[in-house]
Amino acid sequence: MKYLALVLFPALLAAQPAAQPTWRSPEVHSDGRVTFRLQAPKAESVTLRGEWMAGNQSLTLTKDGEGLWSVTTAAVAPDLYWYHFMVDGVKTIDPRNHLLKTGARSNDSAVDIPGEAAAFHALRSVPHGTVHVELYPSAATNGLRRLHVYTPPGYDAGRGRYPVLYLLHGSGDTDREWSSYGRANLIADNLIAEGKLKPLIIVMTDGHPADANDPAVRARNTELFTRDLIESVIPFAEKKYRIEARRERRALAGLSMGGGQTLAAGLKNLDKFSALGVFSMGIRDDAFEKEHAAVLDAPATTNARLRLFWIGCGKDDFLWENAVRLHETMEKKGIKHVWRATEGAHTWPVWRKYLHEVLPQLFQ
Amino acid sequence: MKYLALVLFPALLAAQPAAQPTWRSPEVHSDGRVTFRLQAPKAESVTLRGEWMAGNQSLTLTKDGEGLWSVTTAAVAPDLYWYHFMVDGVKTIDPRNHLLKTGARSNDSAVDIPGEAAAFHALRSVPHGTVHVELYPSAATNGLRRLHVYTPPGYDAGRGRYPVLYLLHGSGDTDREWSSYGRANLIADNLIAEGKLKPLIIVMTDGHPADANDPAVRARNTELFTRDLIESVIPFAEKKYRIEARRERRALAGLSMGGGQTLAAGLKNLDKFSALGVFSMGIRDDAFEKEHAAVLDAPATTNARLRLFWIGCGKDDFLWENAVRLHETMEKKGIKHVWRATEGAHTWPVWRKYLHEVLPQLFQ
Repeated sequence: MKYLALVLFPALLAAQPAAQPTWRSPEVHSDGRVTFRLQAPKAESVTLRGEWMAGNQSLTLTKDGEGLWSVTTAAVAPDLYWYHFMVDGVKTIDPRNHLLKTGARSNDSAVDIPGEAAAFHALRSVPHGTVHVELYPSAATNGLRRLHVYTPPGYDAGRGRYPVLYLLHGSGDTDREWSSYGRANLIADNLIAEGKLKPLIIVMTDGHPADANDPAVRARNTELFTRDLIESVIPFAEKKYRIEARRERRALAGLSMGGGQTLAAGLKNLDKFSALGVFSMGIRDDAFEKEHAAVLDAPATTNARLRLFWIGCGKDDFLWENAVRLHETMEKKGIKHVWRATEGAHTWPVWRKYLHEVLPQLFQ
Repeated sequence: MKYLALVLFPALLAAQPAAQPTWRSPEVHSDGRVTFRLQAPKAESVTLRGEWMAGNQSLTLTKDGEGLWSVTTAAVAPDLYWYHFMVDGVKTIDPRNHLLKTGARSNDSAVDIPGEAAAFHALRSVPHGTVHVELYPSAATNGLRRLHVYTPPGYDAGRGRYPVLYLLHGSGDTDREWSSYGRANLIADNLIAEGKLKPLIIVMTDGHPADANDPAVRARNTELFTRDLIESVIPFAEKKYRIEARRERRALAGLSMGGGQTLAAGLKNLDKFSALGVFSMGIRDDAFEKEHAAVLDAPATTNARLRLFWIGCGKDDFLWENAVRLHETMEKKGIKHVWRATEGAHTWPVWRKYLHEVLPQLFQ
């Protein structure tokens, strides 16, 4: 309100008791170091946790004589990261930073560190597609649900149909984060502009149909998600968008919980999908083999149907062992797949890279 | 991450040292009271500021023996409101609440209090339109800018063209907030479902083309905004969407700063707009009359062009006197307009009501 008044009535400036502080947070330096600042004169302890940090690491800020806490990181690899402060134990987003990483249950601040390594998902001067926010009736939940749809540059000008990727988020997110934070739309725009990807449609659905406090309801999430995807999402998307409605042109991929949903919904519906992408997810016990025996014990049939089965995980991911087990199970069963053991942990910089790598392979 | 592990591997639950707390924040009671809670054992003072509060009021939370602060409000009128905590002077969004009111410079938490009075902007079981997020090249900034577009239910199924409202946000917001928080899309969906509004397209643009630290640059914001609107936004929207491209079917409205932009860009371009809506904005000195003399001193011509000139302001708005002056200037000049002096302050509950009232009048 005060800022508004200043913009509207600059003459009021003279009457303002205090000017806006001159410091910024975050301040990204040209060498990739970042300074974070927080005004908190009464706090006893302020720490910073960021997505680029390994494990449960954090940085401790120090306070100056005016109550301004600050810390400068070592150089951070160019990318888009979430972060938050812990102020005497209270999670606090950066009050001076409008940039957010939103989520299904909580929110963080975000910092964008530009650089060549992040150029593949940066906003560049290339033709851009559109992100659409849709509400659709779900048979599985008997209510309205939301999804995001990416259409490529030129979609509106033409009449042609496009292949489609159904792209799933992780447990902490919603249908919004693959575009708002994962930059799926910019990754696709950039690949298309470089001639590395033929235009496609990406449907980003909400993976929490059984979002509830009741654990018994939550336990049915994968089942409800699969029903929702098959019975509601795909028919809705194919009716509203010019999608090639056949399995050879339909892919499914997801990260973490969405990787598990990709396995669960994908392997049970190989009549509908010809490509699967599993990012940072795996299996932990024998239940998976039993559940999908029909597919796993018929490798010739399965391999004929699955044109691409891409599995990737970072070696620092807390699900690494589970991903290895998924890979080894597929080896054992003779199911063809791409196994990508990469650097990285359970973070969005990894998932952006995975999407960038997988997109051009989906409909080759 | 911990939550993710729990969802994926419920067996890990037994190994978790502490269960999730059982309390929630916010907790909306059936009578419209709301309890807000924050775990902050070391804090000395926690207050709450919410959009429903008059002036600079706030509520003080009290701490229990476990370090959990809480306060319960009196009954609050049904609506969607922003709020935040001040924890020893540090602005803090509610860590237990994913719902946000985002902004151009900072973010707040949000609480949705359902009820009949808010049903006009609630998510209801009616046909829903689509919100599109677009990037477009701006001649005024020589860069890419973002805008949001609402298309009504049935848009994709048909071939017809629609009238268009260009809808502008306030100084604290971006092109995103009219749909993410103002619920312009749901307000239109509900009106259309009730037969009170003929389908239209709403283009929500970004009003900060001169967003910069340099005050000299910021001073050019209105000029750059007007150029951007006329030279880039309207041509982009009319090329990409099935819009009736003539002044009788083109309206412009905005709140606060966007109301000022509506006056500045609208009155200078009456060959392009036939309806204007000014929400919670006014004029403060003689400069306005001089600036728009050509229009104000030719009431017959102006009145023939302006089918609707709607001005509304809440009596508790800090811009109330300016809005009255705008109304009185138009009276003095003989410019026909609708003057709506309403209850309320400079808040989104007022602006949602204004949009709901104005939409059906735009293209009658």
